[in-house]
Order: sequence, then C-alpha cells, then structure tokens
Amino acid sequence: MSISLKKVQEHNTAQSCWVVIENKVYDVTEFLPEHPGGAKIILKYAGKDATSAYVPIHPPDALEKNLPLEKHLGALDATSAQELDNVRASKKKTQDEIRIEREQAKKPPLGRILSLNDMEIVARKVMPYGALAYYSSASDDELTHYENARAFSRFFFNARVMRKLSGCNLSTTVLGYKSALPIFVCGAALAKLGHPLGEANITQGAGQMGIIQMVSSNASLSYAEIAASRVTPDQVLFFQLYKHNNDAALKRIREVEQLGYKAIFLTVDAPVPGNRERDARATWEVDELEAEAGAPVTPSDAEVEVDTGGRAASLIANVDINMTWDETIPWLRSVTKLPIVIKGIQCVEDAVLAAEAGVDGILLSNHGGPTNDLIPGRQLPYSMPPMEILYRIRQRRPDLFDKMEIYIDGGITRGSDVVKAVCLGAKAVGLGRPFLYAQSAYGAAGVVKIIRILEREILMCMRLVGATSVNQLVPSMVERVDWHAVAPKL
Amino acid sequence: MSISLKKVQEHNTAQSCWVVIENKVYDVTEFLPEHPGGAKIILKYAGKDATSAYVPIHPPDALEKNLPLEKHLGALDATSAQELDNVRASKKKTQDEIRIEREQAKKPPLGRILSLNDMEIVARKVMPYGALAYYSSASDDELTHYENARAFSRFFFNARVMRKLSGCNLSTTVLGYKSALPIFVCGAALAKLGHPLGEANITQGAGQMGIIQMVSSNASLSYAEIAASRVTPDQVLFFQLYKHNNDAALKRIREVEQLGYKAIFLTVDAPVPGNRERDARATWEVDELEAEAGAPVTPSDAEVEVDTGGRAASLIANVDINMTWDETIPWLRSVTKLPIVIKGIQCVEDAVLAAEAGVDGILLSNHGGPTNDLIPGRQLPYSMPPMEILYRIRQRRPDLFDKMEIYIDGGITRGSDVVKAVCLGAKAVGLGRPFLYAQSAYGAAGVVKIIRILEREILMCMRLVGATSVNQLVPSMVERVDWHAVAPKL
Amino acid sequence: MSISLKKVQEHNTAQSCWVVIENKVYDVTEFLPEHPGGAKIILKYAGKDATSAYVPIHPPDALEKNLPLEKHLGALDATSAQELDNVRASKKKTQDEIRIEREQAKKPPLGRILSLNDMEIVARKVMPYGALAYYSSASDDELTHYENARAFSRFFFNARVMRKLSGCNLSTTVLGYKSALPIFVCGAALAKLGHPLGEANITQGAGQMGIIQMVSSNASLSYAEIAASRVTPDQVLFFQLYKHNNDAALKRIREVEQLGYKAIFLTVDAPVPGNRERDARATWEVDELEAEAGAPVTPSDAEVEVDTGGRAASLIANVDINMTWDETIPWLRSVTKLPIVIKGIQCVEDAVLAAEAGVDGILLSNHGGPTNDLIPGRQLPYSMPPMEILYRIRQRRPDLFDKMEIYIDGGITRGSDVVKAVCLGAKAVGLGRPFLYAQSAYGAAGVVKIIRILEREILMCMRLVGATSVNQLVPSMVERVDWHAVAPKL
Amino acid sequence: MSISLKKVQEHNTAQSCWVVIENKVYDVTEFLPEHPGGAKIILKYAGKDATSAYVPIHPPDALEKNLPLEKHLGALDATSAQELDNVRASKKKTQDEIRIEREQAKKPPLGRILSLNDMEIVARKVMPYGALAYYSSASDDELTHYENARAFSRFFFNARVMRKLSGCNLSTTVLGYKSALPIFVCGAALAKLGHPLGEANITQGAGQMGIIQMVSSNASLSYAEIAASRVTPDQVLFFQLYKHNNDAALKRIREVEQLGYKAIFLTVDAPVPGNRERDARATWEVDELEAEAGAPVTPSDAEVEVDTGGRAASLIANVDINMTWDETIPWLRSVTKLPIVIKGIQCVEDAVLAAEAGVDGILLSNHGGPTNDLIPGRQLPYSMPPMEILYRIRQRRPDLFDKMEIYIDGGITRGSDVVKAVCLGAKAVGLGRPFLYAQSAYGAAGVVKIIRILEREILMCMRLVGATSVNQLVPSMVERVDWHAVAPKL
Repeated sequence: MSISLKKVQEHNTAQSCWVVIENKVYDVTEFLPEHPGGAKIILKYAGKDATSAYVPIHPPDALEKNLPLEKHLGALDATSAQELDNVRASKKKTQDEIRIEREQAKKPPLGRILSLNDMEIVARKVMPYGALAYYSSASDDELTHYENARAFSRFFFNARVMRKLSGCNLSTTVLGYKSALPIFVCGAALAKLGHPLGEANITQGAGQMGIIQMVSSNASLSYAEIAASRVTPDQVLFFQLYKHNNDAALKRIREVEQLGYKAIFLTVDAPVPGNRERDARATWEVDELEAEAGAPVTPSDAEVEVDTGGRAASLIANVDINMTWDETIPWLRSVTKLPIVIKGIQCVEDAVLAAEAGVDGILLSNHGGPTNDLIPGRQLPYSMPPMEILYRIRQRRPDLFDKMEIYIDGGITRGSDVVKAVCLGAKAVGLGRPFLYAQSAYGAAGVVKIIRILEREILMCMRLVGATSVNQLVPSMVERVDWHAVAPKL
Repeated sequence: MSISLKKVQEHNTAQSCWVVIENKVYDVTEFLPEHPGGAKIILKYAGKDATSAYVPIHPPDALEKNLPLEKHLGALDATSAQELDNVRASKKKTQDEIRIEREQAKKPPLGRILSLNDMEIVARKVMPYGALAYYSSASDDELTHYENARAFSRFFFNARVMRKLSGCNLSTTVLGYKSALPIFVCGAALAKLGHPLGEANITQGAGQMGIIQMVSSNASLSYAEIAASRVTPDQVLFFQLYKHNNDAALKRIREVEQLGYKAIFLTVDAPVPGNRERDARATWEVDELEAEAGAPVTPSDAEVEVDTGGRAASLIANVDINMTWDETIPWLRSVTKLPIVIKGIQCVEDAVLAAEAGVDGILLSNHGGPTNDLIPGRQLPYSMPPMEILYRIRQRRPDLFDKMEIYIDGGITRGSDVVKAVCLGAKAVGLGRPFLYAQSAYGAAGVVKIIRILEREILMCMRLVGATSVNQLVPSMVERVDWHAVAPKL
Repeated sequence: MSISLKKVQEHNTAQSCWVVIENKVYDVTEFLPEHPGGAKIILKYAGKDATSAYVPIHPPDALEKNLPLEKHLGALDATSAQELDNVRASKKKTQDEIRIEREQAKKPPLGRILSLNDMEIVARKVMPYGALAYYSSASDDELTHYENARAFSRFFFNARVMRKLSGCNLSTTVLGYKSALPIFVCGAALAKLGHPLGEANITQGAGQMGIIQMVSSNASLSYAEIAASRVTPDQVLFFQLYKHNNDAALKRIREVEQLGYKAIFLTVDAPVPGNRERDARATWEVDELEAEAGAPVTPSDAEVEVDTGGRAASLIANVDINMTWDETIPWLRSVTKLPIVIKGIQCVEDAVLAAEAGVDGILLSNHGGPTNDLIPGRQLPYSMPPMEILYRIRQRRPDLFDKMEIYIDGGITRGSDVVKAVCLGAKAVGLGRPFLYAQSAYGAAGVVKIIRILEREILMCMRLVGATSVNQLVPSMVERVDWHAVAPKL
Repeated sequence: MSISLKKVQEHNTAQSCWVVIENKVYDVTEFLPEHPGGAKIILKYAGKDATSAYVPIHPPDALEKNLPLEKHLGALDATSAQELDNVRASKKKTQDEIRIEREQAKKPPLGRILSLNDMEIVARKVMPYGALAYYSSASDDELTHYENARAFSRFFFNARVMRKLSGCNLSTTVLGYKSALPIFVCGAALAKLGHPLGEANITQGAGQMGIIQMVSSNASLSYAEIAASRVTPDQVLFFQLYKHNNDAALKRIREVEQLGYKAIFLTVDAPVPGNRERDARATWEVDELEAEAGAPVTPSDAEVEVDTGGRAASLIANVDINMTWDETIPWLRSVTKLPIVIKGIQCVEDAVLAAEAGVDGILLSNHGGPTNDLIPGRQLPYSMPPMEILYRIRQRRPDLFDKMEIYIDGGITRGSDVVKAVCLGAKAVGLGRPFLYAQSAYGAAGVVKIIRILEREILMCMRLVGATSVNQLVPSMVERVDWHAVAPKL
C-alpha cells in the first residue's frame, strides 16, 4: 500500500500520530505512552518525516521489535518520496554542519593522539553539537564526573625497585574470559550519534586489541549487528541489561544468549532519569545558533519536557524501579545460566548484599558520565566516587574480593588510574565515554588507538611500580594521601 | 487640612522634620530616634517628597502603626500635588532604569530556567542595582554565604540500590503542619524592592505548591496583606519575630495570631547590625553611574552612617539585645500558645540549651545571606555553617533530634543539599534568598518555578539514594568526606 | 666654614667620601662600614647631594647620634647651595611622581574607606613605587605574609546567642596600661617614605583613639619627635628594641626611658637580613620606567648588594646576633625597670623558655611583613603563622597564659581576626603594615579611620559571638576547622 | 679512503644505513638495533648528514666507544665536504633560531637573577625549543615534578630564637667528601643541548663553589672531558651509572675509576622509558612553526615512535631491567671499591632493603624531572614525592639514618627546601634541572650564580631557624602541617 505525504500530514496529533522513517510510514499513536524517550519528542514529528532524528539513536530493528506489524502502514508513494528527497537535497547546511566540515578538514593525523585527553579534544571538535551534549553532559554542575576523575589523584604509588621486569604480562581474565589488558568497554551507547558505523567501531577495535566489550541495552545498532561486527567468532561480548518488566527482559536475555553474549550486567543505578540540564540547553543553543545564521527555527518544546521529566519519570517509564535483592536476582538466575554482574553498586553495604546474593561480580559505578544510557546525566550528584568505594571495601571488607569479581568505572583517563584500581583489588576497569569519543573522531582506528595508549601507559606504570603481571599489583603499592594532587581539569 | 509644598519645605531639619508620602504630609520629628533604619536616612528627605524611597521597603500600615495619628498632618493641596506629579512625570530615567528595561526585554522564557542558579542569574540582571545589593550582600568579604554553600560539598552520598522506588512521597510535616516538600520559605523580607507585588508573590507560589512560608517581621507588605494573599484559607504561615521590647512584641504576636499565623520563629542571631559594606558601596556606585550619565548628584551621606553604624547600633535600636534563656522563653510561652522556634542557633551548646528551655524547634542559621532582615549582611564572618552544626549535633547529641524539630537554612541551591540535611536529621530546610530572586524575576510564577525545580531535584535525589519517603533518609546515607568537592562559585 | 660643591665632588670615593644633606656637608668615610644599610648605598652619593635619598628614611637626629661632630664639615657656600636649589627646581618630574599626582587627584574621600583592604588599595596607588616595595615586599615568594593571613581562615566561631549584650566594653590592658581596643601599633618604621609627617601620624591617630603604639628602633622620626607628637602627656608608647652591642642598646634604652616610653619589646627574630628580592626589583623597575620616559639613568648597583647581602650580613652588621636567654635577658633586667617583652617567638618551645626567663610578655611574630624594620622581607619563608603558634600554646601549654602576656601580630585584616586571637588567649594583637598604609594615604586621619573600622568590626563580632567584654571571649568560641575557608587574596 | 656524498646517499635504508657526522662517514647498519635512542631516529638521517642532530646529545667518544672501527668508513671527499658546508652556510635561519637571537639580545645581566626561578625564566627564553622540551617535560600531565615541589610546601618551620649565630658554617660531607653546602649536582645530562660547552659548565661552577657533581652516564661530554674540566685536581665527581649488561657496566666503572670519580650512584628507577608526550609534541610544534614561516617540512615520524615506545621498550633496550638486591649489589661490590649509592628509592620498604644490602647511601628520587637521563619524562606519574618518603622514613624507621647516608632530589627551588630536608635527616640534597637551566642561560657563570643564590638562602634560613651548622638542623625544627601552603606555580 503506498501512501501520500498529504495523507500522513493529516495524522499529526496525539490522537492519531503517523511518522515517516526512511520513506516508510508508521502509525505510532498507541506507542506514544510506551516510548522510552517520552511521547513529546515523537509528537514533534507527528505527520512529518522523522528520519534524521530517528536513525542516529535507534537500532535498525527497533521498529520491528517495538511496533506491531499492523502499524507498519507501508511505503510513501513515489511522488511523496521524491518530494522528501528534494527537501533533503535542498536543505541548507546548518551552522553546526558547516563547523564540523571545517573541523574535520583540520583533524590531526591519528599518530598525534598521545593520550585519551588528546582524543577527547579532537572528538569534541568534530562531533555534532547535540551529540556532544549527549556524550559529555553530567548531572548537577557536572560534579560527579569530575569527582570520579579527581578521586584517582588522591592515590599515590609506593613504587618498588630492583625487581626483574622482563616479560611483563598485562593480561587478565574477566569472568573467566581472557582480556589482553585489565580494562573493558563499559556500556557505551548511542554511538551512531558520533559516527555512522556506531558501536561496530568499538566492537572492531576491542576485537583487534583483545579486550571485552559490554554492549548497552540502548545501543544504536542491534545486538545482532554488533555481534556480527566481531573480529573473530570467539570475541567476547557482555550485555548491559536495563531491566524493564520480566517478559521484556527475558526476551532481551534470550536474544543476546542466542547471539553468544557471555554475561549479563544488570544496571541498578539508573531507576529514574537524572537532571537533563546540559542536554536541554544544547537544544536551545543549537536553535539559537541557526537563528543567528538566519534559519527559521521552530521553538523547541524542551522546556516542558525538562520540567516534567523529574516528576512523572515518563522518559524511562518502562524501567523496573522495584528491583530487589530478594526477587530480582533469584529470578534472573532462574532464567539464564550466564554469569550475573550488578552494575551500579555505590557503597560498601550494597557490595556486601551483592556478595550475599551470590552474584558473580559487581561493577562499582555511579554512572560516571552520560555515555552509558539513553538519557544523559542520569546520575546522582555527590555520589561517592567508585575509586573511593573500592578503597573502602579494601579497608573494611577485603573478604569480598574473594567472593566475587569487583570492577569499577568512571573517570579513568590514564593507565595509572587502571593500575591503582587493580592494586586495590579491582579485577578490571571499565571505560565508556573515551570509546565514544574515539570512534566519533576516527572510527575503529580511534578505538584501537586509545587501547594502545592505555596499553603503553599500563605497561610503563606496572614496570615502574615493580610488577610484571597484574597479580603482582598489590594494595601496599598504593597509598591514599592527604594532600589531594592537582586534579584533572574540569 | 490641605498643605502646600512650600510649607513642607520649611520643615527640613531634625528639629522639625516633615515628609511627603503619596501626597500626604507627615511630621516625623519625634519619630526620628525610633526609626529602625536610623534618623539620617529620613533627614535626607526632610521637607521633601519621600514616596519613592519609602514605598518599596515599608508595609502600607507602617505609618499607621508607628506614627501617632496627630502626626498625620493631612494631604498636600492640589497645586502642590500637581507640582509633585509633574516632577515625577518629567523625571529622566536613571541609568539603572534604562538598564533594567533593556534586560527585561531580553529575559528568557520561564521554561528555560532549569536551576536555582539560572533564576538568580536572571534576577540579578533585571533588578534595580540597589535592590540587588540589599539581597545579595553578605558580611565581611561575602565569606559566610559562600561557606554555607560550600559546606554541603563536603557531604557525599552512600547511595543504596535494589530498593522498591514506586510511589515516592516527598511530603513531611513542620510543627505538625503538612508540607509537600521538606523545605519552607525562610523569612525573606523587603520583597517589594524586587517586585511591586512583594511578599504576596511568595505567598501565592508557596500556597500553590503546598509549602509553608515564614513571614519576616520586616516584610514590605503588612502581615494582613500577606495573609490575604493565601491561595486557600488554611494555607500555613509562620511568623519570624524580631523582638523589640515586650509590649511591641506582644502587639505583633497578637496581630499575627489573629491573622492565623501558626508559629513564632524568634530570631536571636541578629542583635546588632553587621558590616554594611556592599550596601554602602551600592549607593555610591549608583550615584557614580548617574553622574557619568550627566545627572546632578547629591553627595550621599552614607559615609557617616557606615562609620557610626557599628558603634551606636542605632539602626536597630529597638531590637531587644538582652534576651536570655531564663527570661525570654518563659515570657513568650506565657503570652502565646503558638509553637516557639528559635532561629539562629549556631553551636551545639546552644542547641542543648534550647532543648532544655523546651522550645518546639530550632533553626540552625547564621543569617546565611542578607535577605532575611532589614539590614543586609548582618551576620558574623566565619560563623559555623549550619550544615556543619547539624553534623556536630548528629555526632555529639543525636538525642536532641527527639526533643525538638531541627531545621537549617543558608546556602541551599540544589535538591541534593536538602536531601543531605534531611538525612542527617533536619526536619526541613529553609530557603530565603532564592525566593526573593524568583519573585523579582518572574513574580509568583517564578516562585512556583523554583519550588518545582527543587521538587524535581529532591525526587531524583531520593530515588537515587534509594528512598521513597523522607523518613527513609537516614544518616548512613551521607558521609562527610575529607577531600572537599569543588564548591559552588563565589 | 663654607664649602663649595666642587670641593665636595672631589671626595667621591670610599677612601674619602663626602655627601651633602640639606646643604650641609658631611665626611662619612669612616662611617661607611658602620652604616646599617651598607656602604654601597652611600657611595652612590659620594661627592654629591644625598638629600632626597637620605631624608625619608632617617630621623633628623641620626647624623648627630651617629656621626662625630668633627665630621660635620659645615654648610655649602651660597653659590653651591643656589646651584643645588636650581638643580632641584629644574628637575623634571619622574614618571612615578607624575603617576602619584594623578592618583592623588582621584583619591576617594575618607568616608568611602570601609575596610583595611580598601585603605591598602588607596595607599598602593598614591605611594611612591619604591616606598610601596619597602612596605609590601615579603620574603621568598611573599609566602609568609599570605600564610599569616590565611591562618585566620582556618578558625571559625561557635557563636553564642541569648546573652545580654548591652554595654559592650572593648577595652583591655597591655602590660597594665589601658587600651581602648585589644590591638596596638606594632613597630611600623620608615613612615616618612609614605608621608612627610611619618610616624607622628600614627602617634596622633593612636592617641586620639586610645590605643598604644610600639615605636621601632628604625623609626624615620626621632624617638623624641614621636614622643612630642602625643595627644596627651600620658599617651602610652612602647619601644621596639633592635639590640646592637650592649653600649648602644643601653644608650637607646636610656633615651626612651627619659622620653617616657613604657616598655621594651626586644626583637629577636631578625638577626640577619632576609631575601630582598622585591626591594631590589623595585629599584630596577623604577629605573626602567624612567628610562622608557627618556630620562638618563645611572645603572643601579643593586645587583651586587643583593648577591652579597646574604653572605656578609653587612646590612645589619651591628645587630647582636649572639643574644641568649642566659645572658641577654638578665642583662636587660639589670639595666632597666621597664617591662620586657620578647618580640619574635615562633614556636611553643621558645614560649616556654621565655616564661622561664621571666619576661613580662611575648609577641608571637614571624616579622609578618616587611613593615617593621629597616630591611623589608627579612623573615623566614615557611615560618609558622603566629595564629597557629597561639593555637599550639593553647593546646599544649595553656599554663603559659597565666605566666606572662602573649600577643600576636602578622596578617590581621579584620576585627574578626582580632577576636579569634583574643578568644584563644592573646592579650592583644599587633598591626603594623595597615598603619603605614593608612598614614601614607590620609595622614593621621587615615590612622584614626582604620582604628575606627577595627573598633566597629570588633564590636560587631564580639556581640555576635555573645560577649560584652574581652574576658568573655573564651577558647570554646573558636574552632579550628579542617576545610580551610577561602583565604584572603594574595 | 675518501667518500662521495652521492655514494653515501645510496645507503639510505635499514638494510644499509650510512650517515655523515662532521664530514666523516659511518656505517651504522648493524648498530641500529643497539642504539639507546632507537633505530628510527637514525634512519631519519640514513644516507644524509646527521651532524647537527648528533653532536648536541652525544659525547665525542661515543662513536669510538660504540661503533667498531671498521664501520668508521672514512672522510667525505673534498667536493662533498664543500657541498655540505655550502648547504649549511646557505641554510636559512629557522624560526626558532631567530627567536633565540632576539631573546639573547634581551637577556638581563646576571646580577638581576635573584632566584632559581628567575634563572629558569631566562633559560626558557634563550634555549632552543627542542632542548627546552627535553629539559622540562615530565610524565603524564607534568604531575610528578609539580608534586615534588609542592611536597615542600607542606613543611613549616618551628624556628628557634636567642641562639648564638655568629660563625655559621654551611659545609657538610657527602660520602666523606667535603661539600661547601648540603647540596650536590644530580646527574644532569645532555647539557650541550642548552650550551655548547655542556656539562663542563657545571663542572667549572661546582668546582669554584666547592660542591660535588654527580655525572650522568648519558652526559653529552665524555667522562674524561668532564674530569678534565675540573677546577682543581681534587675536585670531587661522582658517577651516575645506568647499568646495561655486566660487561658494559664494568667497562664504564673502570673508565670512571681511572678518571678519579669517587662514587657510583646506581640508577634503579628508570628501567623503562616513560611517557614522551611533550617531547614528541615539541618535534611537531617546531615543524609547524617552520611550516608557518614557509619552510618545506618533512613530516616527522615521531608518531610511530611514540606509539611503540611503551611496548617494545626499544629506546633503552640495553638497560638492565632485571637488577635485584640479591644479585646486582653483591656483583657491584665485587667489581669496585667505590662507595655505592642507590638512586631512585621510592618507598620506606625499599629503603630498608637497601640498608640490609649494605649500600653506602640511597638517593630518594622519582626522577623528579626529565633532566637526569637520556629520555625525558621517564618517571612514574603519582610517584611519592621524595620529601614525603624522607618524612615517612623519619617517622617509621629513623634508625636507617644511622646505617647509610640518605639524600633526596626533585623539586628543590629554594634554600628553605634544602634546610627542611636536612632537618629531617637528609645528608644532602640533589638538584639537576636548575643546573641545566643555569648553564644554558649563562654558562659556568650561571652555575656559580645559582649556587650562590642557594648559599645565601640556606644561610639566611639556617640562621633564622637558629642553627649555625648543618648538624644543628634537627627534626623538631620542621613540622608537617595540614593546610598545604600555596605551592609553587605549575
């Protein structure tokens, strides 16, 4: 059945809401209340072409999975499709697109990227303004991310000398799987915002360098596409589960099990959306930029969203906000044989409860940046930095390190950060945002690059503290000092 | 009896001082020594029209209450009234008025205000320079306000996960009265300086959102006008009492009792005026601004005032500076059945004495800004931040939380600040200055807006620490850290 | 005997060095090695007129006291005197003089000075560049002065409320002498550099306000002139003794005894000159300024002086660097009945020794600025701030407060600083540099002004902590905190 | 045998690599893998003239020592030599050379250098950009050097007064050899980069002032040339040994023994190269500077080097990375009678092991800057500052000070830093970078100058803390404070 654009335009209300995506027409009226991103953002495109807004943040199978087939109304008729193509072709470049082209032309060769910070600087220049806001915004006053990074600056090394250093081995295992370095990719999502190939860049880079990728529920590629991007069939992927109701969760688990994913990282620290200030501001600022350049601008309705966001929690309405140790973990155990890791432990008490619940691991995390879920800046301001939680577990409950694997993420920018965490007992360290920046700037090659930088830094650091394997990294090599070194810049 | 302006002009000395207010003539000669703001400021207008200086900082019933009727000399004659009207009509706009008009035109829509800080930024732009100085000045080097805010940055959360979060309830009670949020309006005065409707804006906004307003003795509307602005008859108001002599105090108490006010907050931390530097400077700076624009300027006599201010304490000559636990509290109990709260406790020792005196509550406060009384910047430099006092009570005398309600104010800018205080035992948290800014910028709608922002932030924060009601906020959820997070900017 | 300028010019070497001061000729050849400021500075004027360099830093009786009468060669002949006058009259204004005239014209009325900081800002503008360098330079990296001031920011108040506050009395006694405030003037010297009336300005102001002045051995007026400047005959002066050999010291002591000075403050923390970096730089910078303006400039020989300064200690060659508790104090006791205070105690151990030596008081001081002796910046970098020493005495040896009076100086800028020190046990607090700035900017009126500012601030602070007399200021009112408040700016 | 440039140009690959140095031709093909600086940097000059790159960083005997004589192929023929001379003569000045000439012309007279910081400022202006990068770069984010310097700011003095101060003696002994001051020159290398006379400047200056120089294995002059530069035959030199295999080490030891060097400082904290970020960037930045000025630029291959540097450790391939307490020290003892000092101890535990191994001394060091070995920035980020290690030894194992001499280096900029370290037990304090800067800016005179500055500062500081000899400097004179003084600027 072929449909005219005119017909589509008649369905431009919440009562009947049609949208066009890649020249196909969908009736999303009934889906509006279920949309994880809220109804409002869809209504902005009611009766219109939504392709450019939709594609970068949804996996290709999202419509198939979430919208009943009878709502897939069919293709636009040829005239209408042509009309849309014409509109797109004649569309003037936005100020942001012009800026990006200019910056892309000036981008340094990859060889000049010497640190993760260098990579972020490049990525920030070549990314769309909106994508940058998604990746980099953090909660109230951007404090949490900064504090996570700064926490590492309170730990100094007691380096040992006169030890045999030949044959240094950086590898470790995570849940029994080999990793070339004590790091893994931590649930970075929405990668297509930064680069058209999206999460596949990360899969490729991680595969080449022998580290494990944890794939977010909110990836902008399908889980299958990511699995298909692996360098070898036995490349290991983990799955970061945002649990909705049991049925939906089970469906996701079955899907990734069949695709060969090797573990479930249940996310427990994002039951509600955080403060979306920078994200909201980005929308306005882009509008203003275009307006200054003379473009006609439709006033954004972001105001309303922001204001109600906190109240109704509509944006992530489907996330299970009633998970408990008593019910959720046993249920999860009952439906899958995959190892279970709890992502988002933020205090010693909950680490103890996790061990008692018998999980295979915990990831100390306060959602250190906005990169690992759909809604940026979701975390708690003044949440305890993961490195501090790790330190407290080492001080108060060192027995926990024998009961399960413990990881941390958030604020890691140097190999020395990784080494410090491993000294205190972390089995491995997760990074998210740096991978998003790297793939945004240079695709898979950027991902390889930052892993090589970390490899070089970790190797140097291990040798200089006097260790030739990760199990020689011990707590006495790290000392929490009282003077607070100069911290990474905000 | 109708009076000519010429006649008024003859009474232009301390020996015989007449002033015109809204075309009526008053003989204030005998009142000069009693004026809480000092004689000098009145003498500036001796024999002249004082309307524009008088109206924004006095309630309409001030003359009636404070000046014997025989001193109400009568109206100006028609010619004189016309003459004054002409003067006012022909008066050139001041530089400050021009600036404000320009800024008002650029004011962002309310929807773009995402935080209390955003609101303050707007208010600072659209307010008269002098009003801003009143609202924002603080004592020596503005240290106290900054330290109050910074104190919160030393407390981090130990957030709990895997708890049922549906049905989060933010409400609490204050002295038995329901409050939609664990916050209340704290004695913000002189609101007419920022907005013509003054404190009524706050009453309206608080009523709509279900929180309680504590009304200052120094409100620029009459207590009756404020009571009449309530959204519903049962909207709760408290009264912040600046106690003068017993008779005057009794008169005030009787008045607010009859108007239905529900509690007395006795202010004990402002026995003497503080350092008025910024306020004094504002006067000069405004003069200079006008002078630069070519206006003839009468040299301000602020110099003398400032210099003598500290010595004679003339500015608040009538405040009772000899209150004691032994005499004042029993007397107050003897004259009113209303609950009594002591506002201005600044150390653990005095909290203990308050509990022993049997009061219903204490408000830990160091006059965190200049907004809650007539004279700005009244507080003690290097006074202990209320959040630190609260922490010390929790550490040393947790039993006090069972004996009376404990509140804090000063430096609150985020919902997370509120949650931290409630975790440590605060029954509720007072904010003053933010309400003054909000009403100055957007009237009652601004007041509603910042309450909604706080509501959103508190809700998010509670859920993310794992609580669904205020009584689930417990001390173990907060940890005083030793590294001093990045603090709010000065 | 009248001498020609030509004759003078022949004596322009170290072998025979004559100089002209106020048209009189002196042979200073034999005095060169004894000059406290070193020979080099005199040799710069060998065979020339030295009036403008000599007058601002020497008391009028210096020549009489230090140079045998036979070296007073006589007056210039009339022609020569006229010639010098002509030179002076035709001398082009220096860039610095032009700058000062411009700044003097813009100087704000005294009434606008609201804080000691305001005063310093004005003084820095209207003072000669070289004088400013003398007053404000401090040792290595200006650290010590800053740390002294910053030390106060670690002490917060536990303010008490509900206390009777009428009748607040700020007076105290120092060595039994009445002082209107718990402050005194601390050995500020070289006042003529900043104002032609010099130390007499301070004497006048202190007298009017009822506080005590400690007069430096290095005052730029004679001790007699200062005594003669007193407001009343019983105005109290103390004497800061830089002890040279016993005979010289005895001569000084006898002189001040006869002039009615009431105590001896023996300075023990300046046995050697400090690092003179800023002072040296000032010389060059002034030269460069003039050179830029086209003036012919004689290259300064400051380089050599600076370099040798440390080695030979020539600059203060006469100061006794072998004082001991066993010898010096008994000797001093044996020659004078005046009370003896040791100025410059810098640790608890020496405070104990001072008490054991039976002195009447100690002044905890690390030469907090360069204002209180001839050579600026004389102190030890990283010396312990006096406020910290006071705190340590209170913690470890509170008994010492009963054995002698203890004072502190260094870094005081606010009345709250004074109150904190008195709470911890200081009998009074010395200020030096602020008085130099005040008299430089406004003469005696400036001195009165800053005392009034301090009076106002101390009064406010005492009332707000709940005290009506200095003996109600007790240690429990002050708490050393661990967060380091924002400190005064460098 | 005379060789044409054309012939040389044919050998421009790794398979056959010839280079020209000072008009002589060398076949370095087989040497490529052994080059401590890596093969890549040589290959850049394969078939070309390498003189200007080679000379400033190699001692004259390097070719003789490291390249078999049969690879010294002979001189260029006259025409070729002339051709190269013409090339050099016609070479346009680089932007950096132009800048340096300009800065040299403005260089202040030596007399105006008042502090080590002044000296560094001048040196940074007059040095080639690349040399500066070598001298000043430090590891990740330049943190370590800054932290070393900042560590001193946590130590304040408890100064003593009333002590006899005449006859202050600053001398001490190091390993039994007299030193005029408790400082020594610490392994500064590559001095020719900054000044054509290189390390000889330092030898001359140290000799004149009576302090000891520790000569680096990587000096840019031969050990013999340095020995020949001594002021007197008995001037003491120590040798900093970078140990390669035993045979190579033995050869070096024998050489310096015969030259009269007096001790072996075995370097143990640089087993692997550090992060070379600034150094790599400098290369690019210089290229860009020239490119902007229109010069044709060959793209640098630094990218590849940087990236592989960490992995293969090729840059210092020959350094012994398997030294141990059990094997290396006994071996060293067996081959030499010279005293042995371990340079690079970074924690108390290793200090204990060193004492147990019976060495004569340890130098607490984290390679505080990049100045003391071939590859800049080699050290560990977040390594414990030496001053903190010294403090920990004093606290936990004061007995170690009796078992061996203990020194520190890193971050010293003031005489007060030296005095603090000596108070805590350091026998002497090493400085490296300041000597490189001093000789770069002013040659030997600069070296003398900074020693004199330190002498003046140490003397002043000792007297002001109440000591007249280094053994009167005791731990109680220094106190570690909790407030962290303002630190030296980054």
